[in-house]
Amino acid sequence: MTKKEYMKLAVELASAAGGQTSPNPQVGCVIVKDGRVAGVGTHLKAGDKHAERHALEMAGTEASGADMYVTLEPCSHHGRTPPCADAVIAAGISRVFTASSDPDPRVSGRGIKKLLDAGIHVETGIMKEEADELNRRFFHYVTTRKPYVTLKIAASIDGKTATSSGESKWITGPGSRLDGHRLRHEHDAILVGIETVLADDPELTVRLPEGGIDPVRIVLDNELRFPLQAKMLQVPGKTIIFTSERGGKDKERLLKEAGAEVIRLSSFRIEPEAVLEKLGAVSIGSLLIEGGGTVLDSFVRAGLFQEAVLYQAPIIIGGRNAVPAVGGSGMERLSECPRLVLKHVEQLEQDLKLTYRNEVQKECSPEL
Amino acid sequence: MTKKEYMKLAVELASAAGGQTSPNPQVGCVIVKDGRVAGVGTHLKAGDKHAERHALEMAGTEASGADMYVTLEPCSHHGRTPPCADAVIAAGISRVFTASSDPDPRVSGRGIKKLLDAGIHVETGIMKEEADELNRRFFHYVTTRKPYVTLKIAASIDGKTATSSGESKWITGPGSRLDGHRLRHEHDAILVGIETVLADDPELTVRLPEGGIDPVRIVLDNELRFPLQAKMLQVPGKTIIFTSERGGKDKERLLKEAGAEVIRLSSFRIEPEAVLEKLGAVSIGSLLIEGGGTVLDSFVRAGLFQEAVLYQAPIIIGGRNAVPAVGGSGMERLSECPRLVLKHVEQLEQDLKLTYRNEVQKECSPEL
Amino acid sequence: MTKKEYMKLAVELASAAGGQTSPNPQVGCVIVKDGRVAGVGTHLKAGDKHAERHALEMAGTEASGADMYVTLEPCSHHGRTPPCADAVIAAGISRVFTASSDPDPRVSGRGIKKLLDAGIHVETGIMKEEADELNRRFFHYVTTRKPYVTLKIAASIDGKTATSSGESKWITGPGSRLDGHRLRHEHDAILVGIETVLADDPELTVRLPEGGIDPVRIVLDNELRFPLQAKMLQVPGKTIIFTSERGGKDKERLLKEAGAEVIRLSSFRIEPEAVLEKLGAVSIGSLLIEGGGTVLDSFVRAGLFQEAVLYQAPIIIGGRNAVPAVGGSGMERLSECPRLVLKHVEQLEQDLKLTYRNEVQKECSPEL
Amino acid sequence: MTKKEYMKLAVELASAAGGQTSPNPQVGCVIVKDGRVAGVGTHLKAGDKHAERHALEMAGTEASGADMYVTLEPCSHHGRTPPCADAVIAAGISRVFTASSDPDPRVSGRGIKKLLDAGIHVETGIMKEEADELNRRFFHYVTTRKPYVTLKIAASIDGKTATSSGESKWITGPGSRLDGHRLRHEHDAILVGIETVLADDPELTVRLPEGGIDPVRIVLDNELRFPLQAKMLQVPGKTIIFTSERGGKDKERLLKEAGAEVIRLSSFRIEPEAVLEKLGAVSIGSLLIEGGGTVLDSFVRAGLFQEAVLYQAPIIIGGRNAVPAVGGSGMERLSECPRLVLKHVEQLEQDLKLTYRNEVQKECSPEL
Ligand SMILES: [Zn+2]
Ligand SMILES: [Zn+2]
Ligand SMILES: [Zn+2]
Ligand SMILES: [Zn+2]
Repeated sequence: MTKKEYMKLAVELASAAGGQTSPNPQVGCVIVKDGRVAGVGTHLKAGDKHAERHALEMAGTEASGADMYVTLEPCSHHGRTPPCADAVIAAGISRVFTASSDPDPRVSGRGIKKLLDAGIHVETGIMKEEADELNRRFFHYVTTRKPYVTLKIAASIDGKTATSSGESKWITGPGSRLDGHRLRHEHDAILVGIETVLADDPELTVRLPEGGIDPVRIVLDNELRFPLQAKMLQVPGKTIIFTSERGGKDKERLLKEAGAEVIRLSSFRIEPEAVLEKLGAVSIGSLLIEGGGTVLDSFVRAGLFQEAVLYQAPIIIGGRNAVPAVGGSGMERLSECPRLVLKHVEQLEQDLKLTYRNEVQKECSPEL
Repeated sequence: MTKKEYMKLAVELASAAGGQTSPNPQVGCVIVKDGRVAGVGTHLKAGDKHAERHALEMAGTEASGADMYVTLEPCSHHGRTPPCADAVIAAGISRVFTASSDPDPRVSGRGIKKLLDAGIHVETGIMKEEADELNRRFFHYVTTRKPYVTLKIAASIDGKTATSSGESKWITGPGSRLDGHRLRHEHDAILVGIETVLADDPELTVRLPEGGIDPVRIVLDNELRFPLQAKMLQVPGKTIIFTSERGGKDKERLLKEAGAEVIRLSSFRIEPEAVLEKLGAVSIGSLLIEGGGTVLDSFVRAGLFQEAVLYQAPIIIGGRNAVPAVGGSGMERLSECPRLVLKHVEQLEQDLKLTYRNEVQKECSPEL
Repeated sequence: MTKKEYMKLAVELASAAGGQTSPNPQVGCVIVKDGRVAGVGTHLKAGDKHAERHALEMAGTEASGADMYVTLEPCSHHGRTPPCADAVIAAGISRVFTASSDPDPRVSGRGIKKLLDAGIHVETGIMKEEADELNRRFFHYVTTRKPYVTLKIAASIDGKTATSSGESKWITGPGSRLDGHRLRHEHDAILVGIETVLADDPELTVRLPEGGIDPVRIVLDNELRFPLQAKMLQVPGKTIIFTSERGGKDKERLLKEAGAEVIRLSSFRIEPEAVLEKLGAVSIGSLLIEGGGTVLDSFVRAGLFQEAVLYQAPIIIGGRNAVPAVGGSGMERLSECPRLVLKHVEQLEQDLKLTYRNEVQKECSPEL
Repeated sequence: MTKKEYMKLAVELASAAGGQTSPNPQVGCVIVKDGRVAGVGTHLKAGDKHAERHALEMAGTEASGADMYVTLEPCSHHGRTPPCADAVIAAGISRVFTASSDPDPRVSGRGIKKLLDAGIHVETGIMKEEADELNRRFFHYVTTRKPYVTLKIAASIDGKTATSSGESKWITGPGSRLDGHRLRHEHDAILVGIETVLADDPELTVRLPEGGIDPVRIVLDNELRFPLQAKMLQVPGKTIIFTSERGGKDKERLLKEAGAEVIRLSSFRIEPEAVLEKLGAVSIGSLLIEGGGTVLDSFVRAGLFQEAVLYQAPIIIGGRNAVPAVGGSGMERLSECPRLVLKHVEQLEQDLKLTYRNEVQKECSPEL
């Protein structure tokens, strides 16, 4: 086995805990002694043991003189758990191989330094790209203190989400809808506008065959029109309603009594920037925006998204008055439009799933 | 070599003449004598020799006792050229292998029968699928007498073709635009609405690096607002303007003087069905509809299209008032929307090209 | 996440311990509670905790009411560790999903029955093919009590392993040789003939960049010509020398003093069948036969191998007196030759690695 | 369409005449006028019209002002046909695009120069790699005046072509044998040793489902032991028997009377070099060597081959006295062995077809 193969196993262990470690990163760890795997570990959820701890416990006395492959630089500070770097040293590990560096300024480089100071041989950056990809949401959050934003768009090939008469069930097929529930499971919170609540009364829960983790539900509601009987308040989990200075005080009280959390912004209109700041402050590291078109547009215009997932159904709806996937006021100039990078194409039964990243700002192409 | 391999060569010969044989089919022919290719031929354009003739001339006396592989049943009727079946018999061909049957009721089966009556061994259906695909536009035309209609849509990932301020140059990149010129080359005619003419004053010509065939230009113009100075009238090739009973008689005369052909329909509004009938009658076998959104919508709602090509740029435009790729009145009910079949996905630089066929009418999927 | 995806993770955990669990199977386990991975485990080596135990410990109280995905039916008998089925029941697991059934007659079906009797919902056969493939060597051993035999052949494209002058270093390149060391790591024992020992004085150890497990070394030596100074006796690990009734008693004693184990068969010639029986009896579950050609031939003629791995170098050696990859007396009739099934083709730098299984006995093909 | 696409069509036309143009190259030609294919041509056999002629005839007056895509530089010298360069100029072609340059010193560069002198725009090297690959045998012959040599080896995975009892029918399956007949069709001549004739009495003809071209049959026979009743003398086509100074004069006369051609070399033993020189002199441009093992070895040791095709059956034969695919005296030193480059892997039913080129002479790899 090579270093890359052992690290690949650590990355697989890390990815096993997808969607359940927030606001912590996903981390996997493998301990190897004399060409034999002596321990494996993965971090399962905030508050639980770190991956290194699990692997060290499994290895027991075998850890002495062994190699450790860990997808993220071991922590050096006292958080909810004592520092892993100390445990690694205490266990007598000889060599440590890491993939990603810790982007957290409280830690970055210190874990490595501690290991080096203890005389441990350290190599970094093995399979870094794969490990960074896995924690892209976490890394964004740690460095910006705002959640990683994914836009979810389910539309016809002509970009519509409902007919002119408002019919929208179901444009995409079962395969896309199942995948959409995975997206929910992977994010800490899910956001919709009040119009979506009024029109569909959605539960915004995860419905996967073998279960999943319900994200926090976020609703943007300038005037607090949120119905007290909304299903969202009757299912388990937290619902946060953002409102503006225009939201009624009485309604706010009633909503709180009904179980919702209400965050009032002191502006005439709810601004995406302010929403992300507030969410970041309460440890929401990733946010899935499901619509409607006006809400999506406000985040697009503010440039406040990192990823867009398009479920495209093989159907043409047409109609100037049909509901566009991204509505609102939109961009005026093409040169201002975000130009994305296509990362992934997947066929889900009849539909296409296209995953874009908001990575590169490029000039529009000249005329042919 | 096997029969399939020889027929594959014939199919390649047929495909060499893509976009230039209309209203005739693309046909390729290979003659094989004693395991040796003795002649190849392809039909180049209407009025020219058929593929079988070219191959027979190349083979000369070698044709006697040889095998012929031809992608379409040889013709048996006297058209612009004498029947190929007779020439095949006269040349002493021993065995004939065909791919597609002729869908033309004047011919279908008769060519084969003539060959069989002359004692020639005949096998049909070899690589039929590939040969049928090549002539899908021709077969549609021959059986319906209406052109095969392809919708071309170039849009953002949210289905917009222009921003709310009307800016549309350039959403898609050079690779998509080049490919769009190929589409034009492959079709007999290209259709746009009068709004597109007034907004863009397009030439609607083929601009390919090594040249291409300009399609006939079709404009739908209910009230004959077509400008006499439009570029379209100044470039080579034919321009046909459809109008309704509302089109002015004087303007019609002026347009004719300026070189346009004007077809007046005796209805209040130009109906897609009538347009296709008129075009079929003047041997337009394939039609590319480039927009705008209202025109595309009218053909979608009428169910009058066979293929849709979507060039999707990795950009989000947004805006309820931005220009939708397919506008007009649109579908009211999802169940009425055409459900297409994805045939092909191709990356063209930053853009995606998605090719759909309007083949199967399917039920919408049940809720997950 | 779906059942298949959770089981895939369990299979990956099982494969992490490749080559180190013998004579136990490789097993992986994942515990899922409310759509959240609550524990993972893998069996690391004989005597250690089973995969289920590791996963249950990691899950702790979360195991109650959770789902367990395990690649092999949980054990029900008291071996070196108490039965896992009891632990699963005690922990309050609600549903158990398995991949492979246990081929061991002491266990097969009993673990499942115990779980069912305790009211646990059980589903079997999820990703069975992948899990069975992983444990193919173990399953063969458990059902036959003889080791799974892999033939390793490193040869030129004309099937030679040395030139007529005996030169054999190096026919295959570094990539093949590295892969050959992985093969050693994956097997419990490695076997060569005495001629190979006399010619090359090999160490037969695993030399992988990050280490590996040295297999037991087996030498077939009818007359006990094994040199007392052989390197094999100076490196760590066990060396077993098989001999026949012809092996000298004095030499046997000297070899034992030098650290070798000697197994004397009461026959004139060492028979492959007897070797496999003896090795099976001492818990050797998998055996890699590296040559020379005479030894390979004896196992081929006896039909006693399950897999053949061919490293083929892009070189032609030629020569009637060059050393053939498989020598000995060989097959007389083509109809008696083992006809294998190609499982895998891989390019290793300039060489090809071809993996064959000895699965299907097929008729030779008729003349074309 | 782009230049590359038109040239690709020309290459496909050239490849249509595979195996039938020797000693001429395979050439394809496409004429394009105003974005429309106006003529296609391929060279069918020596003595026939060149590809350019066929295409020009098809194009007729359309050739004036058109572009020509031709896979090989047009000829400028008076051979069996007048120079194509003159015809291209006379037809009024505007631009000429070529793939390969002519390797023949009588022509190279002169055709291009003639076109340039006539004011034609010329671009060379478009899809050169594909066109060169197609004519690799021809180019080798033109530059060396010796045939391009392909070794055909059909063997077990341990490199045997017959069991120790001599049984060799059938090691490889029907798919390999069919493909072997294609190889024959593609070569001008096929060579075997006298032992193969005495053992198998082969016809050495092409048996393909739709026919093929029988190569000239070459037999190496130092002592003229060739049987007068051999089947090879009873089937159509030419048989050439090479002999040494040891071949009997009377037998030579009898063989000539029986229809064979006999070439006597004034050496004690037939040397591969001399054979290739003689064959080159009689316009044999490509030679397939089918065995036996001694003959293959003599060409391998002389370094006189360009390609080796291995049909490998999934069977192990074993046996020091089994018949090796490449026998004879063989190489003494590994460093002298030809190290080949793998070009192509294909599965033919149960067998593997591996195509190697004798291109690069490389150092053996150092020990791992
Ligand atoms: Zn830690
Ligand atoms: Zn015809
Ligand atoms: Zn157990
Ligand atoms: Zn020429």
